[in-house]
Amino acid sequence: MNRLDKTIAAISPHDTASRAAARARLEQLTMPHWAMGRLMDLAEDLAGMTGSVHPPVTRKTIVTMAGDHGVAASGVSAYPQEVTVQMVGNFVNGGAGVNVLARLAGARVVVVDMGVAGDLSALAAAGKIISKRVAPGTANLATGPAMTHEQAIQAVGAGIEVARELAESTDLFGTGEMGIGNTTPSSAIVAVLTGESVATVTGRGTGIQDEQLAHKIAVIEEALRVNQPDAADGLDVLAKVGGFEIAGIAGLILGAAAARKPVLVDGFISTAGALVAQALCPQSVDYMIAAHQSVEQGHRVALEKLGKLPMLDLNLRLGEGTGAALAMHHVEAAVRILTEVATFAEASVSAA
Amino acid sequence: MNRLDKTIAAISPHDTASRAAARARLEQLTMPHWAMGRLMDLAEDLAGMTGSVHPPVTRKTIVTMAGDHGVAASGVSAYPQEVTVQMVGNFVNGGAGVNVLARLAGARVVVVDMGVAGDLSALAAAGKIISKRVAPGTANLATGPAMTHEQAIQAVGAGIEVARELAESTDLFGTGEMGIGNTTPSSAIVAVLTGESVATVTGRGTGIQDEQLAHKIAVIEEALRVNQPDAADGLDVLAKVGGFEIAGIAGLILGAAAARKPVLVDGFISTAGALVAQALCPQSVDYMIAAHQSVEQGHRVALEKLGKLPMLDLNLRLGEGTGAALAMHHVEAAVRILTEVATFAEASVSAA
Repeated sequence: MNRLDKTIAAISPHDTASRAAARARLEQLTMPHWAMGRLMDLAEDLAGMTGSVHPPVTRKTIVTMAGDHGVAASGVSAYPQEVTVQMVGNFVNGGAGVNVLARLAGARVVVVDMGVAGDLSALAAAGKIISKRVAPGTANLATGPAMTHEQAIQAVGAGIEVARELAESTDLFGTGEMGIGNTTPSSAIVAVLTGESVATVTGRGTGIQDEQLAHKIAVIEEALRVNQPDAADGLDVLAKVGGFEIAGIAGLILGAAAARKPVLVDGFISTAGALVAQALCPQSVDYMIAAHQSVEQGHRVALEKLGKLPMLDLNLRLGEGTGAALAMHHVEAAVRILTEVATFAEASVSAA
Repeated sequence: MNRLDKTIAAISPHDTASRAAARARLEQLTMPHWAMGRLMDLAEDLAGMTGSVHPPVTRKTIVTMAGDHGVAASGVSAYPQEVTVQMVGNFVNGGAGVNVLARLAGARVVVVDMGVAGDLSALAAAGKIISKRVAPGTANLATGPAMTHEQAIQAVGAGIEVARELAESTDLFGTGEMGIGNTTPSSAIVAVLTGESVATVTGRGTGIQDEQLAHKIAVIEEALRVNQPDAADGLDVLAKVGGFEIAGIAGLILGAAAARKPVLVDGFISTAGALVAQALCPQSVDYMIAAHQSVEQGHRVALEKLGKLPMLDLNLRLGEGTGAALAMHHVEAAVRILTEVATFAEASVSAA
């Protein structure tokens, strides 16, 4: 059995005894029944994921996967491709949005080069990023497959490796990404895996105008026509219209799920990665927490396919892992409610 | 000029220069334009409130106002009135929801007895709560005014005093409350001050069933008929159909606004207090941040009247200040984004 198959085989359902024990305690807390709403739902889920009524969530890691995209040459983004490398530098220097929100959350940020079109070897050699680069950017999905089947397997496997390496020192994962042009493969993946039209799931990314949006939709439609991805085969979809960082996110989620670690899925691109993980292993969805509802219009459709309600809705559209970093506070809040609020009996308060 | 009038006179509009300077920096950050959405709106607001492009928010205080309600005798709540006193004990012992979430937020909880129907003098003497008690609970608003005009002024004044006393050691306030039966006066206030029907703004509180909800609506309708509160006079509405803790919250908000301190308004009952503050001083709204959208159905209407979008929507319906505690993380996140994310120039990243 190969690494991907082994990982998938290791992903188990929630621990029902821990879920039940958590629910029993939550129902006795000094408050009206289930008065903390979705935080209580989350607390019950965390108990099921971790198999504990004291789910550990203090050691937090956001994995920001970077990759470049051949389709950037087709003029689908408001920014030039060089920004991917520049933003990796910004991550390493601690000046990006994800660094700032991770510091606030008490999380570390681990940056992974999954296939950036630039030389990051010095940062990798210095241990400032992890290098899992598959190639210097994908091929242009508008004219053929973004990557080979072997590259797709390699990239997902790299994400699994990263999860495995970090799992020993991580209780709670967050996904993140950087890659100029990466809402284009994300919309393509979401269209294929949800069955929605390209126009329905394609938005303005970093901020393109109407004319460029129409062009982006046409590029994705052409990509689907040229590549004919098989919606029943997650690896085929990933290879034909995906991206290296999206594959890495899918692998990270599978690896985290196999280690029974909850994963906060960030925004639209991360959710495209989550859909690939779902296609490869439906059970993996049980370990995902949707961090937020982004502005990107395909995101809602993708979250529905996962069956997830987002924790936050703040008109974010940055990615990087910023939404995951913000939502970590809510995960900790859910655990604190479960473990620290007094029961009616403990506090001698009259129940209803 | 009396204390209330002096406080109202001291409430100023936002500092426009600080707002503009904050916006200018936010527009240069290494991310697509306004990509952190509502956190950036909030950062701009905080600059305007505090008159600083480094808005201080680290010293956080949640003020949980407790009071009892004569209308509890009319059978409007799922819980007996004794729970108000018991929950004050729970707050003091650190076992309630607000304590747990305040600890996570790094906030202190200050409990104020605004008029509980029980003896809290030992806790007050020990310095564990602040006593501003007006009376041991309001009169039953179903049969006459909940309090006198003088009591309403006293209770709002007490909230102002609390804000003034705490403002020296507080950058960011959160409101909270405890009082069995207090969704009933809150719905009455919201109905009067928004002009909506009682049925539209009355919900299940701590969890009453259909029949009891119909009874609660009838009680509130009767209260409005008997008392005829004047929608143009916030103090009249408060006196006739309000509550001591709701008055305290209104005063706290006015006092915080006069000190240019942002205030996170918690859930439905706190928002009723915020509507009273708005009625007394429309400018005070500029210092309010709506923490969350609660399950209670009148809350949305009340937030619309304030012109506020809630930061969170997590099906909470607890009160105490729990939503305010949770949203403090977002306030800090907004400030960190403003002050810590690198600009394109600082990070040598190419702009669009």
